[in-house]
Amino acid sequence: MSLLVVGSVAFDAVQTPFGEREKMLGGSATHFSLAASFFAPVRVVGVVGSDFGATEMKVFARRNINTEDLERIESGKTFFWRGSYDFDLNTAHTLDTQLNVFADFKPKLSSEAKRTPFVFLGNIQPDLQREVNMSITGKKLVALDTMNLWIDIARDSLIETIKDVDIMIINDAEVRQLSGEPNLHKAARLIRAMGPKTLVIKRGEYGAALFTEAGYFTIPAYPLESVFDPTGAGDSFAGGFMGYLANHENADDATIRRAMIYGAVMASFNVEEFGTERVARLTHEEINARFQEFKQMTHFEAVPFEPKAKAAL
Amino acid sequence: MSLLVVGSVAFDAVQTPFGEREKMLGGSATHFSLAASFFAPVRVVGVVGSDFGATEMKVFARRNINTEDLERIESGKTFFWRGSYDFDLNTAHTLDTQLNVFADFKPKLSSEAKRTPFVFLGNIQPDLQREVNMSITGKKLVALDTMNLWIDIARDSLIETIKDVDIMIINDAEVRQLSGEPNLHKAARLIRAMGPKTLVIKRGEYGAALFTEAGYFTIPAYPLESVFDPTGAGDSFAGGFMGYLANHENADDATIRRAMIYGAVMASFNVEEFGTERVARLTHEEINARFQEFKQMTHFEAVPFEPKAKAAL
Repeated sequence: MSLLVVGSVAFDAVQTPFGEREKMLGGSATHFSLAASFFAPVRVVGVVGSDFGATEMKVFARRNINTEDLERIESGKTFFWRGSYDFDLNTAHTLDTQLNVFADFKPKLSSEAKRTPFVFLGNIQPDLQREVNMSITGKKLVALDTMNLWIDIARDSLIETIKDVDIMIINDAEVRQLSGEPNLHKAARLIRAMGPKTLVIKRGEYGAALFTEAGYFTIPAYPLESVFDPTGAGDSFAGGFMGYLANHENADDATIRRAMIYGAVMASFNVEEFGTERVARLTHEEINARFQEFKQMTHFEAVPFEPKAKAAL
Repeated sequence: MSLLVVGSVAFDAVQTPFGEREKMLGGSATHFSLAASFFAPVRVVGVVGSDFGATEMKVFARRNINTEDLERIESGKTFFWRGSYDFDLNTAHTLDTQLNVFADFKPKLSSEAKRTPFVFLGNIQPDLQREVNMSITGKKLVALDTMNLWIDIARDSLIETIKDVDIMIINDAEVRQLSGEPNLHKAARLIRAMGPKTLVIKRGEYGAALFTEAGYFTIPAYPLESVFDPTGAGDSFAGGFMGYLANHENADDATIRRAMIYGAVMASFNVEEFGTERVARLTHEEINARFQEFKQMTHFEAVPFEPKAKAAL
């Protein structure tokens, strides 16, 4: 089944200890849709300016991502973000943000877009997320991301918005900030009571955790000796995760657990090179090989300990 | 097979956000041996003073822990530690340390102790760890713990000592400090090149990681909504881990993976109450039930993604 994402499409300038790029394709909806495109047909809703050229459009086209709802404003420029990372690659330092056409972004959904069954409300202003959500009549499953900024300045709107989503996908700091509770397990309970029955918590180098009716599930991050550029890791995770669910047309416990792994797989590839470079040329063989590596690094046999064995020694 | 531990036996005074205890049984060898005693016969090597009474000895006796090598110095007092924890229960604040009889501790091993096949060199001065290790003629597998203090002030001795151990069990900060490398996976490679073929990294609320010839394995921490007293969690982990290996008389990949889980199980019980209170009255049924919970929260089916399934949608 097809999957819709609304979010930012941007140009990024990124500096890391391993190198830099002055202007490359970025944005949450970009990273999300590239990762998701390996699993399901994806439609991207966003806005770009006249500087968004054929080279960028080709990255979407090569992965068969539907860009009919990617609005183009000839009088403006594309959202631009400049950031840097220190050796501890966990924290992005924003050096410059030029919202440009994104400042007045009002998602406009085509009638076909409104019939999409799987929906990802990427990190945009919560009022807009809610409008998009309400306008989609064909939805079966809706997931949402957000960020510390909206928890700070649009808290009430965000709380209103998450009442009507099935899955919330945020990082651990955001979980603590939104719930006001430092213990992750208590915090997860509080957030699930606000609406989303399923909560996915991204924990960076520590992996991710899933809280559902069925219980708690946790996965590690893929062990990387060098992270090249962390930009878009969370969006790639969400893309792999939602793409897998859209492909399977359900979110039962077994499926959602595998979706978590595919999310982590896509995030791990994303950070190996700058921007979208690595994911754009991925293959299904590479994806499945890394999925099997996740099995290898988490598997153990559930053989209970038999205290009587002691006597035999 | 039997298991020997050398380390501190102490009185602890602990204050946490949930309460306090003025004087309770503690010490690395105490927590280790209690946890290990559920899996294998344990012998503890340490020193106590005249204030160490029948009540304390009974805690060991009830778990059939051999205390023949627990030296008693009538003219001195037992090692005393006073510490507190804030709401973030990850960091212990030391308020008072009275080494007492532990200051001049020279482990004295009986001839029976020297024939122990499984050995845990708890966190004591590295010269002493090396002496104990060399004096044990019957050893089959030796593991070692240490702390930031010894990496700071006895680095050369520690590096000499770990040349002759099979397994090193330390936390992530110590891994980074000892290797001088911030990336955990690179750091693990460096430390394994120093001697210990197997490296176990304790990561507190993020679980633990295992690095061996066979590869990388990672486990989460047990999800606790409230940690009561973290003192001894690392030692309980090591006790469950080594006890399980001693019971199975080997450390092949499948066994060591389950040992990691039993370590995490014992650590999770340890922190539920003050000091040794919870572990001292544990049952094998409780231990195995929690082991199964770990399976539940990490298991997923390794079904590879079939890209062709998309066409059927």
